Amino acid sequence: MQDTLGAFVPGAILRRPPHRSGPLSGLSFAVKDLFDVAGDVTGCGNPDWAASHDAPETDAWAVDVLRRAGAALTGKTITDEISLGLLGINKFDGTPLNPRAPDRVPGGSSSGSASAVAGGLVDVALGTDSGGSVRTPASFCGIYGLRPTHGRISVAGLMAQAPTFDTVGYFARDALTFGRVGGVLLGEQLADALHPEIVIASDCFALADEPVRLALEPVIERLRKAVPTTAAALAKGELLEWGRHQRILQKSEFHATFRDWIDRVNPRFSSEVAGAFADDGRIAAQDLAAAKGFREVASKRLDDVLDGRRMLCLPTSPILPIARDARLSEMRAAVHRIVDLTCIAGLTGLPQVNLPVATSGPIPVGLSLIGWRGGDASLLAAAQTLAKEFSIGLYEELS
Amino acid sequence: MQDTLGAFVPGAILRRPPHRSGPLSGLSFAVKDLFDVAGDVTGCGNPDWAASHDAPETDAWAVDVLRRAGAALTGKTITDEISLGLLGINKFDGTPLNPRAPDRVPGGSSSGSASAVAGGLVDVALGTDSGGSVRTPASFCGIYGLRPTHGRISVAGLMAQAPTFDTVGYFARDALTFGRVGGVLLGEQLADALHPEIVIASDCFALADEPVRLALEPVIERLRKAVPTTAAALAKGELLEWGRHQRILQKSEFHATFRDWIDRVNPRFSSEVAGAFADDGRIAAQDLAAAKGFREVASKRLDDVLDGRRMLCLPTSPILPIARDARLSEMRAAVHRIVDLTCIAGLTGLPQVNLPVATSGPIPVGLSLIGWRGGDASLLAAAQTLAKEFSIGLYEELS
Repeated sequence: MQDTLGAFVPGAILRRPPHRSGPLSGLSFAVKDLFDVAGDVTGCGNPDWAASHDAPETDAWAVDVLRRAGAALTGKTITDEISLGLLGINKFDGTPLNPRAPDRVPGGSSSGSASAVAGGLVDVALGTDSGGSVRTPASFCGIYGLRPTHGRISVAGLMAQAPTFDTVGYFARDALTFGRVGGVLLGEQLADALHPEIVIASDCFALADEPVRLALEPVIERLRKAVPTTAAALAKGELLEWGRHQRILQKSEFHATFRDWIDRVNPRFSSEVAGAFADDGRIAAQDLAAAKGFREVASKRLDDVLDGRRMLCLPTSPILPIARDARLSEMRAAVHRIVDLTCIAGLTGLPQVNLPVATSGPIPVGLSLIGWRGGDASLLAAAQTLAKEFSIGLYEELS
Repeated sequence: MQDTLGAFVPGAILRRPPHRSGPLSGLSFAVKDLFDVAGDVTGCGNPDWAASHDAPETDAWAVDVLRRAGAALTGKTITDEISLGLLGINKFDGTPLNPRAPDRVPGGSSSGSASAVAGGLVDVALGTDSGGSVRTPASFCGIYGLRPTHGRISVAGLMAQAPTFDTVGYFARDALTFGRVGGVLLGEQLADALHPEIVIASDCFALADEPVRLALEPVIERLRKAVPTTAAALAKGELLEWGRHQRILQKSEFHATFRDWIDRVNPRFSSEVAGAFADDGRIAAQDLAAAKGFREVASKRLDDVLDGRRMLCLPTSPILPIARDARLSEMRAAVHRIVDLTCIAGLTGLPQVNLPVATSGPIPVGLSLIGWRGGDASLLAAAQTLAKEFSIGLYEELS
């Protein structure tokens, strides 16, 4: 494998063999440079993080599970600095190419993992998703991606960011591989077929830019013919409140995570990332309490809707990937828009898959399904069923 | 010359000969990497500045003047990133050694220039001083340093920071060399001897930490015996107001200077420097107006005191140089303290020299004289006189 996309961390093509043969034998995988791989410093996309941390002695839980299932580790992929970012721009390690839209960002923070999978450098790649870091690059690069139920896949051996948001996710190009790997990570057999009932989140679609809505419209039409659908507003007019509370809670947590390290190390950051630490991150107690209260109510509301049969359908991102050479102000505005939708699974801890189902011109546009709490295997089975039976997404890779 | 101090920008030992022989023949000089040297990118201490700017075609005015006066340019010295900093810590180019206190910071932002002069790598070095960037490293490294009257020495060919504060200054180890070079930069003959009347700024001394006060006490005693002195409070109880207004005005200006570049380039900064851009830099109109009004009143008040005979005496820095491995929070507190005194010449535009006259244990402690507006040559002549006749500072280098 030659890293023609700049997806791997320079010097981090590690080539670790499987521990034994298993259900994933023959598959190659990459891991975001937030996952420990024994003997190699976990760089987390920032040179001052790398310089202030020792190499781990053991593989992260998820890396170990894939190697025990027969998959071979190719190496470590570029992440946005300390996982803060949704665009995939990294001024230190480089910005991986979006193979489907070379003048656009790949999405992040699991940028290199998405790029490597989309460009065919590996079959599968692990990422993490706290605020949208698997879902966004999956959508931008046109591949499958899972953010699991919070707590469902172990985060042991990973850099923490915002613990009540942090999840381990992954990418694949086709629904069959996506399901195979998911079964291993979840330790669950997937159902052969699962025909979900779909609730189309009308207000989430209304929030999306026109090219996104236009690209997804024919897919929604196909969905309507394939499975039972209803349309409903998720949030009764206050959808933007969700993002506001997500930002408060996630920021409060990642400030607590990084505060002492920043004070000790005075690390370098791109201006994009430095902006996240612009103030001291201390949130007024009543704002924090309000956000936590909102989170509880929102989780309960979605648990009532997604009751073991129904799944919620929404655009993964309300915007197309922005240009690689966008200004900082455009970058910030784009991240704000993306979080307006990724916050839904983030706040509630529910599982979400990106289905690579559409394009706007040549640019990928992803559709998402949010499943019920703990229903990760069902969500993957639904994705497989939609891809296989109704050609909504690629089922099996054509090679 | 071998750069044993890490004072020069990596790869920037340029060795440009004098244009002809002249009054500075035989002297070597270095320039802060904020000054244009023809054919070499002016890096300004930040890799993203260097990468987004072309090499200049001509030398900066001050570089040209020194080369025309017979001095040889050795190379370009490390600066705090885009000149923002007073400690001399640079996470990209490295932090130059303070030859007099190797476990302490050298002071900045003209860190490499001060380090190279203090350590004997060159005879003289150019720096810039907007908020204290010549005076602080001169004090910390135990050498002479001038911040001239604002506008007195041309800033042509320099990176701008905060135009109403920006000045070109320089360093030397002894008062004789200091005067020779000053005469060339000012284009003025210095008086053979000048015995100033000294006003000791009692509130500025009261602001200093005990080691600084104790180190300077015996020097003040010698001064009292050498020249007429009086003691007076500069600010009648509101000295800390000066720093507050300086910070507002300087910040407003450097934000305006860098705003578009930051938006375009998304540059990397250490967290220390990123903190300066934490908010958008837009100051409330009434705060800006109040600061400008304060500046006018303060300038007039000092013009009344420093009337062509009297000079103001104060500690250059109220604190000793902090440890090189200090935490970010200590760094920020130190910079705040330093500006409490460097703001006086900054706000008023008056010239100030650091006299290397004392130590606390092995650590240099500088004393400052602030002269009258345009009285730069007199200030240098006074420094020479005090050093030569009264052994307050080193007059001629012992080699």
